[in-house]
Amino acid sequence: VTQTQPDFAMIEEARSRIAGYANLTPLLRAPALDRATGARTFIKAENLQRTGSFKFRGAMHFLSRIPEAERPSGVVAYSSGNHAQAIAEAARILDMRATIVAPSDAPVDKLRGVLHRGARLVTYDRATESREAIGIRIANEEGATLVPPFDHPWTIAGQGTIGPECVEQARAMDVRFDRVLCCASGGGLIAGLSLGLHHYDPDLAIHAVEPAGFDDIARSLATGRKQRNPAASGSLCDALLTQTPGELTWPIIQHHVQSGVAVTDGEALSAVTFAFRHLRLVLEPGGAVAVAAALFQKLDLRDQTVLIIASGGNISPQVFARALDPLLH
Amino acid sequence: VTQTQPDFAMIEEARSRIAGYANLTPLLRAPALDRATGARTFIKAENLQRTGSFKFRGAMHFLSRIPEAERPSGVVAYSSGNHAQAIAEAARILDMRATIVAPSDAPVDKLRGVLHRGARLVTYDRATESREAIGIRIANEEGATLVPPFDHPWTIAGQGTIGPECVEQARAMDVRFDRVLCCASGGGLIAGLSLGLHHYDPDLAIHAVEPAGFDDIARSLATGRKQRNPAASGSLCDALLTQTPGELTWPIIQHHVQSGVAVTDGEALSAVTFAFRHLRLVLEPGGAVAVAAALFQKLDLRDQTVLIIASGGNISPQVFARALDPLLH
Repeated sequence: VTQTQPDFAMIEEARSRIAGYANLTPLLRAPALDRATGARTFIKAENLQRTGSFKFRGAMHFLSRIPEAERPSGVVAYSSGNHAQAIAEAARILDMRATIVAPSDAPVDKLRGVLHRGARLVTYDRATESREAIGIRIANEEGATLVPPFDHPWTIAGQGTIGPECVEQARAMDVRFDRVLCCASGGGLIAGLSLGLHHYDPDLAIHAVEPAGFDDIARSLATGRKQRNPAASGSLCDALLTQTPGELTWPIIQHHVQSGVAVTDGEALSAVTFAFRHLRLVLEPGGAVAVAAALFQKLDLRDQTVLIIASGGNISPQVFARALDPLLH
Repeated sequence: VTQTQPDFAMIEEARSRIAGYANLTPLLRAPALDRATGARTFIKAENLQRTGSFKFRGAMHFLSRIPEAERPSGVVAYSSGNHAQAIAEAARILDMRATIVAPSDAPVDKLRGVLHRGARLVTYDRATESREAIGIRIANEEGATLVPPFDHPWTIAGQGTIGPECVEQARAMDVRFDRVLCCASGGGLIAGLSLGLHHYDPDLAIHAVEPAGFDDIARSLATGRKQRNPAASGSLCDALLTQTPGELTWPIIQHHVQSGVAVTDGEALSAVTFAFRHLRLVLEPGGAVAVAAALFQKLDLRDQTVLIIASGGNISPQVFARALDPLLH
């Protein structure tokens, strides 16, 4: 029987399952961000995770949980982005067949990231076809396991492995966090992170950061009821466009996350520029929103010790060139 | 009395002195580089070190060794680059006065990196003035300690702290290296790294990587005698232009380093592009030469486990834009 709620024990189990496959990403001092905020900031550089985002944690954990007997039938996932690349890589490692269902207009770079890991790609027409229907059909026909992007206990526990990792790294530096900034979309990362961190320190203040116009979690927390974003596209933060919190992630977020803030596309892009210049990290806009929230002082962080999750770095060269542009003149 | 030769004990002492100040930089799997080389590659991302290069290790260690009585007189260093920024940051941390002697035509970004850390900047005219003379005059007048960029046991031992760090990170992943690629210029990093690594595994093959036309260490190793580069400028790898190995670094390099290889500016720039795309790291050309040596197969690495040092990330946005350019069309 599959456990229906992720908890700290499942996170620990996930850690041992992904050890040796996932990168131990660094927890970096950011003196330039300290100067900008008056805080003592630490960046968890999860853009350096295998496949360029935290998604590999959940993907590797999920696939490692699939029983031996079901492995030959492979996995199916629908995503054109970081989840797709993470599933393709985890499947490659475990020698499983992976099918990625992606829209035919997905960025070529991300499709290449799926194909060069040996996954099968099935594209669909956004206007006329349903990715869920295609995914379910393939799962039924081939006996493949459908891997949801965030709303599953194994996925949440996998993303949650980042929590104890940050705590151990901080302890090695004699550091104790006062506040945490983490991006949120479907909520798999922030739910898992919260479970992981609050195990050690139940009083830690955790905040969600979302793109402006896509701040369903901030509004859900403010109103106490799940809210929905009006749009499903139209932000530079393509990794953060899920319309509403998940069935599993929402109760965890409601219990653990204090509030949410939103940043504009321009602020996210400025954070990409800042990360290039001062952190020597390549971030994607959606992966930089928590840095942006600190940089543009969406919360008062003065004199606090702040953990900031930089969640991904799969940015197109075109968008990165836009981020460099203000430095060139 | 100052110890005249760095050794493993001094590296261990350096580690404890820089702990809590230096970043623990990650050792990253690089599946894309594995595919390109047929090797199992690990990148030590030292561009994520405080101030953006390994130089902070040596600077922090050196300054922490200056006796209390001499600290109020401050330090002097001549450099327009990574060493200058590292000295400025270490001095700021220890509340010491730092003077950086830099050419008046040094890159504005690097001068800003010195100034915003609170160091004093003394510029000179490359054509008519000697930086050594200026540095020595300030040291004499003010009683300041002159901090050499590489040819000092404290500096070499400081850089050497990267060695045990890599070994511990590799052991945690059950990995044992067969071969190491590391950039070299004055030789402080590769000398310290070699002392650190050969303490654990005396048979490990270590190779120096230099820019083409500036491969004095490769030629010195090949001939058994210190060689000199014909030019002192003219490579994109501005961090790697020292003309000949140091008095202290050369005997260590001769004893520990197997051979040297050279990469062109174009190859170094391609490695910057590769690091952007596949590693999500910002590298400077001089910091990317060891990645370039693997990528362009300057050595046969097939079926080997290879440690590659990415040494710095202080690149101007203009040069980074050049590295992005091939991806934009």
